[in-house]
Amino acid sequence: MNMPTAPKILGLLTDFGLRDHYVGVIKAVALTIAPDARQVDITHDIAPQDIEAGAWTLAAAWRYFPVGSALLAVVDPGVGSVRRAIAFEAERRYFVGPDNGIFTYILAQTSVNRAVELTNRAYHLPAASSTFHGRDIFTPCAAHLLAGVDLAALGEPVDSDDLTRIPIGITPFWENSALVGRVAHVDYYGNLITNIPLSAGALLAPGVRIEIGDHTITHRATHFAAGPADQPFALRDSSGTLSIAIRNGSAAAALGLARGALAQVWGVPYPEKVGQG
Amino acid sequence: MNMPTAPKILGLLTDFGLRDHYVGVIKAVALTIAPDARQVDITHDIAPQDIEAGAWTLAAAWRYFPVGSALLAVVDPGVGSVRRAIAFEAERRYFVGPDNGIFTYILAQTSVNRAVELTNRAYHLPAASSTFHGRDIFTPCAAHLLAGVDLAALGEPVDSDDLTRIPIGITPFWENSALVGRVAHVDYYGNLITNIPLSAGALLAPGVRIEIGDHTITHRATHFAAGPADQPFALRDSSGTLSIAIRNGSAAAALGLARGALAQVWGVPYPEKVGQG
Amino acid sequence: MNMPTAPKILGLLTDFGLRDHYVGVIKAVALTIAPDARQVDITHDIAPQDIEAGAWTLAAAWRYFPVGSALLAVVDPGVGSVRRAIAFEAERRYFVGPDNGIFTYILAQTSVNRAVELTNRAYHLPAASSTFHGRDIFTPCAAHLLAGVDLAALGEPVDSDDLTRIPIGITPFWENSALVGRVAHVDYYGNLITNIPLSAGALLAPGVRIEIGDHTITHRATHFAAGPADQPFALRDSSGTLSIAIRNGSAAAALGLARGALAQVWGVPYPEKVGQG
Repeated sequence: MNMPTAPKILGLLTDFGLRDHYVGVIKAVALTIAPDARQVDITHDIAPQDIEAGAWTLAAAWRYFPVGSALLAVVDPGVGSVRRAIAFEAERRYFVGPDNGIFTYILAQTSVNRAVELTNRAYHLPAASSTFHGRDIFTPCAAHLLAGVDLAALGEPVDSDDLTRIPIGITPFWENSALVGRVAHVDYYGNLITNIPLSAGALLAPGVRIEIGDHTITHRATHFAAGPADQPFALRDSSGTLSIAIRNGSAAAALGLARGALAQVWGVPYPEKVGQG
Repeated sequence: MNMPTAPKILGLLTDFGLRDHYVGVIKAVALTIAPDARQVDITHDIAPQDIEAGAWTLAAAWRYFPVGSALLAVVDPGVGSVRRAIAFEAERRYFVGPDNGIFTYILAQTSVNRAVELTNRAYHLPAASSTFHGRDIFTPCAAHLLAGVDLAALGEPVDSDDLTRIPIGITPFWENSALVGRVAHVDYYGNLITNIPLSAGALLAPGVRIEIGDHTITHRATHFAAGPADQPFALRDSSGTLSIAIRNGSAAAALGLARGALAQVWGVPYPEKVGQG
Repeated sequence: MNMPTAPKILGLLTDFGLRDHYVGVIKAVALTIAPDARQVDITHDIAPQDIEAGAWTLAAAWRYFPVGSALLAVVDPGVGSVRRAIAFEAERRYFVGPDNGIFTYILAQTSVNRAVELTNRAYHLPAASSTFHGRDIFTPCAAHLLAGVDLAALGEPVDSDDLTRIPIGITPFWENSALVGRVAHVDYYGNLITNIPLSAGALLAPGVRIEIGDHTITHRATHFAAGPADQPFALRDSSGTLSIAIRNGSAAAALGLARGALAQVWGVPYPEKVGQG
């Protein structure tokens, strides 16, 4: 009673948008099953059915949720089809959602302890629909985990090696003397966020060349306000990766680039092993 | 202390949008009065003053809020005018908002136990404005209900038969051999959601013909991923009603249809009594 | 145990938008440090880097947060630069954010009790970034205040007179026989909200002339529904200030006006001292 204990948190990420009742309904369902769990929206504005954007965003967020949290991720164009409904435990958090690649980055960043397919209907809503597993299967299962149900009770064990990964380049690689990666995400401000981890020192080292798409980025900044007014510049993002930004504007629009664009860095004396995400 | 008790939940639905301070203010007001109640946003993105959209959305959500919840619905173009401010109890939940039709579907779906006009100023904010009853009247009254105040204390009793209904077809009807309804809602994905309840069997039965506006829908699917790639198809929605969807796109845009469009189903051996909403 | 005690509330205002993980991450950080604090979003849809809009919105909201609350305001184009990170106590609430003018209205409306620069890294996240002080400095400091840390522990005291104000006209003034102000905010509905406090009596008094930009507003209404259908009208806003609205439309669009437009009122027998905000 002296120390507040870490709260159990349900983190929610979906492509449901906020215009309809869908998000409110899954939160009410979760509260009914796990009334003591706090609920934190990661986002519900993933572009409809954009599994990769959901996967990246979840991976950028999960570390800030304390041990014991459950992360619910529902971007699910294949709802009701043969794709599996899954839950797994990694880094002492639970992850719940469709097995369609939404956990691609999580699976690359963490080591899965246990994984199950959500086959036990006792933990679903009664009369689950074939069109809204977010409400009927994923949310109840995530809430039951927060309420103390053991992961193994939710269904049959599955091999985490068999979980679905999107075939994208998660990790940058060396090619000749360049470190090669890609734009992994374009955020709300239009910043081009790559998958290339970059130290503050490497960013500012003389002789380092940065290319993104067909553009060579000549400016550097340690923070947004230090960038030039109208020119794209490179900086170390809050996640520790190379990003390209423009002050008071969208680098994606200015450079005409989107997710997947090639990113290359020359002249960095990288250790041979590039960070695991 | 052993069993977590069901939480008291305040469900919120408004057309305030999320850009201004309005939603934050009503939540702070509610927390001040009912600090133990949890708050769940149904949506705040009802199109400004679109009472019918608010009414449909509230009706799609309320069943998922546990007994004891209060549902606050504020789409209120007539704020400050003669329309009444009301609260009522139905299905062991409270509903609070303007008497302008926002509860049209709820009144069709449930049986009202008690209803009052919110005339007791002791439960309003002091010096209530004439322009923001959401903050000054509806939210404090909803929060007081969650804090244990009896509904009867909030004002004069009113006859639930006198509560305002929007004159729309809530319930489909039989005409010749067709079941006739309408598009009741277009959701964020562009799905056309009708008011026609449909069993999974009826959806797939041979000889069933489905028309929406001027379009005959020839494809069927039990879930989104099973639909054809570029053609509209009919499916049973997560609310159990007939809906028209397109994979990876908006059926509303593709068919040029909006709320209110005629929906007709032939060949279904329906029971003579069509579901109450 | 008999009376529910006022909850500790963290009010959040940012320009992060809701599409990315940024808001979810700061909420998870805050919950980890202050698990018993409730969280209320004021808004996260301030236009990117629009400090003035953030300042106005925060000022419109804070009074509804109970004593003991912490208000976190992060619209921070200068993140990582020389602008200070600050926290202060006023009206028994805490305010936390960058010292870039985001507290301009708060500083005009309240009297600051104590202020500090957030220099004590013990209360930041470890290895704070130079690009996301919302996550690494402001949120942890606000959460520590809610968890019981004394303001003085967060850093060096600063003189509240030295805190940054945006050089805009906060308070209207008399010029000849006119009360002169400006449009301080355009809300989601397109209402033009001025900084001129107006009593209900003054609004309706004969002989009062209201000009906004180049337009003379001839209509008056005590509430929205009482306004004419297609003409702009003046009303007393829910904050007690003069606003210009159009029923079922945007006054800003109809009149071609934006924030900063001149507002003038003639014929009002105002007390010599115009309200402090």
